[in-house]
Amino acid sequence: MSMLLLVRKETVSTRYKVVVCRDLGPDVMPLLRGKPELELVVWPEDRACDRRWLLENIHGAAGVIVMLTDKVSGSSLQVVSTMSVGYEHVDVNAVAKRGLKLGYTPDVLTDAVADLSVMLALMAGRNGGIGISVVQKGQWTEYPWAPFGFCGPQLSTTAASPTRKIGFIGFGRIAQATLARLVPFGITHCLYSSNPSSAPSSERDAQLAQKYNLQSVKRVDIDEVARESDVLFILAPGGSGTYHVVNETLLRKMKPTSILVNASRGTLVDSDALAKALREGWIWGAGIDVVEGEPQVSVDHPLVKEPKCVIVPHIASATLETRRDMATRAAQNLIAAILGGQMPAQVDLRGFA
Amino acid sequence: MSMLLLVRKETVSTRYKVVVCRDLGPDVMPLLRGKPELELVVWPEDRACDRRWLLENIHGAAGVIVMLTDKVSGSSLQVVSTMSVGYEHVDVNAVAKRGLKLGYTPDVLTDAVADLSVMLALMAGRNGGIGISVVQKGQWTEYPWAPFGFCGPQLSTTAASPTRKIGFIGFGRIAQATLARLVPFGITHCLYSSNPSSAPSSERDAQLAQKYNLQSVKRVDIDEVARESDVLFILAPGGSGTYHVVNETLLRKMKPTSILVNASRGTLVDSDALAKALREGWIWGAGIDVVEGEPQVSVDHPLVKEPKCVIVPHIASATLETRRDMATRAAQNLIAAILGGQMPAQVDLRGFA
Repeated sequence: MSMLLLVRKETVSTRYKVVVCRDLGPDVMPLLRGKPELELVVWPEDRACDRRWLLENIHGAAGVIVMLTDKVSGSSLQVVSTMSVGYEHVDVNAVAKRGLKLGYTPDVLTDAVADLSVMLALMAGRNGGIGISVVQKGQWTEYPWAPFGFCGPQLSTTAASPTRKIGFIGFGRIAQATLARLVPFGITHCLYSSNPSSAPSSERDAQLAQKYNLQSVKRVDIDEVARESDVLFILAPGGSGTYHVVNETLLRKMKPTSILVNASRGTLVDSDALAKALREGWIWGAGIDVVEGEPQVSVDHPLVKEPKCVIVPHIASATLETRRDMATRAAQNLIAAILGGQMPAQVDLRGFA
Repeated sequence: MSMLLLVRKETVSTRYKVVVCRDLGPDVMPLLRGKPELELVVWPEDRACDRRWLLENIHGAAGVIVMLTDKVSGSSLQVVSTMSVGYEHVDVNAVAKRGLKLGYTPDVLTDAVADLSVMLALMAGRNGGIGISVVQKGQWTEYPWAPFGFCGPQLSTTAASPTRKIGFIGFGRIAQATLARLVPFGITHCLYSSNPSSAPSSERDAQLAQKYNLQSVKRVDIDEVARESDVLFILAPGGSGTYHVVNETLLRKMKPTSILVNASRGTLVDSDALAKALREGWIWGAGIDVVEGEPQVSVDHPLVKEPKCVIVPHIASATLETRRDMATRAAQNLIAAILGGQMPAQVDLRGFA
């Protein structure tokens, strides 16, 4: 039996040029390629796209999918779709003024970032970076099991140490997902500071405290968060409003056994101040996924030189599942903005421009 | 006003020599020093005690406090008190035959080891060892943020990937504490294999499933644990009964995206087989706190050479809080065994010797 397969070439009257700053992988590119109305221009290499390539190709484009590292403008654009939850790399005022749509990828990365935040808290408290380094350098033999070798503060409560206060700078989705993961570790208090303009949420906080059987969930000023927290998570947006919110003054208020975790943006932390805090023992340790000026972070960087600073290279959302979801969301945002339909996640630009 | 302080020197008729193989720190040594009946002989250095020193001093001793690395025998002994939950370094048959008491330190280290098990699972899944190494070597600049850079399997479930099966080889206190910590990550199934002689616990398992809202908690054969688990935790005792229970045959049954965590004893895992499994991609990654033959683990060790193997130097119980509790327990066990009273944690030696 033989079959004749007839393929009808669809006629598309209007085509929209779309620039895609990185290949989004075999699961997601077909979403874009399946739209005959879109004329795709995809950065062909396995590295961040050249700015010159981008500026050349953005001319006449209706939409662009960008990564964290890409900055773009173009007069023909209808939509900027960023594969990230943060959009501090986008000139939001300019986007708003020109009436563009801005898509982003919140929610889908919440769990991956919360997972990594827990990992960094544990690594920093348990001297994990030092432990790994000792083994990698073949020095384990110099450190046989000793009663107090490699000891650090314990994340979990114990009978003799029954209180753990967890603090957050920024208390959005990711912070709350991190809090949820810490509950079985026996934490007892949650403190957070938020954007001063955000409305008080004491009812929500009381519900969280009850749900997780905590002694309290409380919004306080940032100094109190610093003073009281056993582990302090920075999970707030980047940008000028939060620049160096963790500085020497704040770090000096923290406890000598406390841990700092930053899985948001490097600009929130003054790296020199954090290095000094670790060197001089103002705090116990730090676990950071982001560093101001990344990826230009050399072996001479003050934080790289601190043994009690565990640094991973901006991988908080780097799971196979989450990045596929983020890429899908970025493609869907772009398609909806150009071809019509509801964008799955659009930044509300009222109040800008 | 002046006071005359009279100190009565107590007369102690019988004194018991006690050998302490490591200084137990300023919080715990006073417990022992406060007993005038005990004549303490304490290894004076900040390293594992010499075997020769131990054998010289054990002569005539009524009790000894040992670490994991100490092996001891002595004809005058009434008690061996080990500062560890495992006692595979103690010749239990000989201890039982001679009617000695054996003290150990279970329970107090459960939470510290569970914390570290979660840390190792996250580190192994999220390519944490590779990430740290990239930063430490100043190579971050070669790895700007990329859609799928550093991606690994996600511990937490996602909408598109809603199932996570967690397996345990050994399902005692530490495994169950680890399970509890993983619940908010969205895990759905728990599988475990236990010592064949232990009684079935299907009622307990049903209660756990209900408590944690899991689809199932189920005892199965070890092959099924290997086949099904997304993360496989080895949390079983060491010794000959579990020697190389994780071998090539078992590792070949695991999924290519699966994670192996060993926070029990190095002898349970065939290091060569695990290195091969990582090198050839039978599994995704491993996080291990213990290595057979430790601390003799050089840079040429097959596991040290595997980038996807995260190794820390036997620090699972190494927190300030827990080690203090373990040392306290070890001192209390010894004191009770010699001076009378209930030992807080005595190994049941019926069935041995």
